[in-house]
Amino acid sequence: MSVAGVGEFGLIDRVTARLSYGSTVLLGPGDDAAVVAAPDARVVASTDVLVEGRHFRLDWAGAYDIGRRAAAANLADVVAMGADPTALLVALCVPAGTPTEWIEELADGIGAEAAGVGASVVGGDMSASPTLTIAVTALGDLAGRPPVTRAGARPGDLLALAGRIGYAAAGFTVLSRGFRTPRLLVEAYRRPEVPYPAGPLAARSGATAMIDVSDGLLADLGHVAKASGVAIDVNRDAFVVPPQMRDAAQALGVDPYAWLLAGGDDHALAATFPPATALPDGWRPIGRVTEGSGVTVDGAPFDGPAGWDHFR
Amino acid sequence: MSVAGVGEFGLIDRVTARLSYGSTVLLGPGDDAAVVAAPDARVVASTDVLVEGRHFRLDWAGAYDIGRRAAAANLADVVAMGADPTALLVALCVPAGTPTEWIEELADGIGAEAAGVGASVVGGDMSASPTLTIAVTALGDLAGRPPVTRAGARPGDLLALAGRIGYAAAGFTVLSRGFRTPRLLVEAYRRPEVPYPAGPLAARSGATAMIDVSDGLLADLGHVAKASGVAIDVNRDAFVVPPQMRDAAQALGVDPYAWLLAGGDDHALAATFPPATALPDGWRPIGRVTEGSGVTVDGAPFDGPAGWDHFR
Repeated sequence: MSVAGVGEFGLIDRVTARLSYGSTVLLGPGDDAAVVAAPDARVVASTDVLVEGRHFRLDWAGAYDIGRRAAAANLADVVAMGADPTALLVALCVPAGTPTEWIEELADGIGAEAAGVGASVVGGDMSASPTLTIAVTALGDLAGRPPVTRAGARPGDLLALAGRIGYAAAGFTVLSRGFRTPRLLVEAYRRPEVPYPAGPLAARSGATAMIDVSDGLLADLGHVAKASGVAIDVNRDAFVVPPQMRDAAQALGVDPYAWLLAGGDDHALAATFPPATALPDGWRPIGRVTEGSGVTVDGAPFDGPAGWDHFR
Repeated sequence: MSVAGVGEFGLIDRVTARLSYGSTVLLGPGDDAAVVAAPDARVVASTDVLVEGRHFRLDWAGAYDIGRRAAAANLADVVAMGADPTALLVALCVPAGTPTEWIEELADGIGAEAAGVGASVVGGDMSASPTLTIAVTALGDLAGRPPVTRAGARPGDLLALAGRIGYAAAGFTVLSRGFRTPRLLVEAYRRPEVPYPAGPLAARSGATAMIDVSDGLLADLGHVAKASGVAIDVNRDAFVVPPQMRDAAQALGVDPYAWLLAGGDDHALAATFPPATALPDGWRPIGRVTEGSGVTVDGAPFDGPAGWDHFR
């Protein structure tokens, strides 16, 4: 059965029947709007949109994994502020011939990724469209903590990273060249493993700045450097190229540091901490904040690709 | 200059420079997420998506009006819960050749509609896409009031309406037939006049159920009747066909009551109130809640078109 056969309301009923609702959901889908707990009296909110052929390809990943990725991209933005995710809203545009099963699997993926971090899908909208498009809004609660912005890094701060990096970019390159292995890399692209707990943990440990690595590590550190009015230097030695990545890089003729330093799809978190901080669980040092501007690797500009622009 | 020429970050800079931020905005665009005041410790949230060719046409309205409509559709959902809108997040997908001026005008329209109701655009995302798509999420604050859902209507309640109805549907029909006048109707379609203050006012006056009329009055009252487990009867005499609508209906061979009772694009509000309620400003009685199920007009089923399904 296609979505055109089931109709808008039938499809919404099918999707909402598959979702489950946590304690932050005071009123779930089915009314004009949802009501979500915001115990901190401030709500953190972020929106990301994924477009077929640009952010994902139907021949590279199944609906469930696309759903997980769509949710992950947004949930990562919320934890990068130091907040605990509470809710997702999803606007879904699909070609009228899309099988309802595909949408149900997508909803399952979004719901599973949200549930893993204590959040629920509380609302959304659906429309037919020639272009499959998924816009997700994530909400979160700061639990009394100040938000960790991009603007608080100070000269002398430690630079640290949480989560995998380069895996998803390597998987993307592998898929782009028509391969399906190494499986570790391809799966990392299909389903990022976001280090969610590391975000609020960093906030509790006094992180001065934090960012979700979505445009590529150096590009995103550039955002932090600019917003904070500092320079950031990354230690190349802090990055060990894992064996599968090294082998794939050799086979494909790619510098693996381009994946590590300029790849974003893993949704790792980067943060700065006061110099004497004992880094919390999941965080490892990768560099230093200094006076000045811009981002360097071992004191020099990086000569690989810098990052991603969705219009180019 | 097209968006491809300016690039994603350049375009975001241009748009955010045009926005202004009210007192509910604790952290605006430019970080991983925004932070919005939620003094009530609950946040109302709703998402709607508009797709070119399905929800709007570029030859029927300018970017500014499309922006106002996109914001209005979402803000209406928030006030229909009885909440005060606080913030919007916008995911915008545009063909790479779209002129940046078009997007700036769209942003101006969204910002103006938000500002009119005390809300601000606090974040968003942009991507290239073959299909122009605007997904808006609206947030709101309940200010200590219970949310007014679709489920609270009780037999004996008054049914009341706030705002214009049928004008936008008439304007849509006029444009569909290739005409550009009557101007009153066409402008009503291009730029709905949502009765925003009527939503929180109804909540303060004890409204038992409320809904944003977006699918058509009878269809939306059907949602209320079903959620509340009641029947709703509409008085046809409560609707006066305005002269321009009567003339257009005659010229186009349409029953104007199809526009009034089945048209949704005005984003009027419908609500039910306990029988003895003195209706607040902007509300007028249009019917009654009774025991039973379904929606009738003067006690009988309506034989015109019932509403809108975005997949059909």
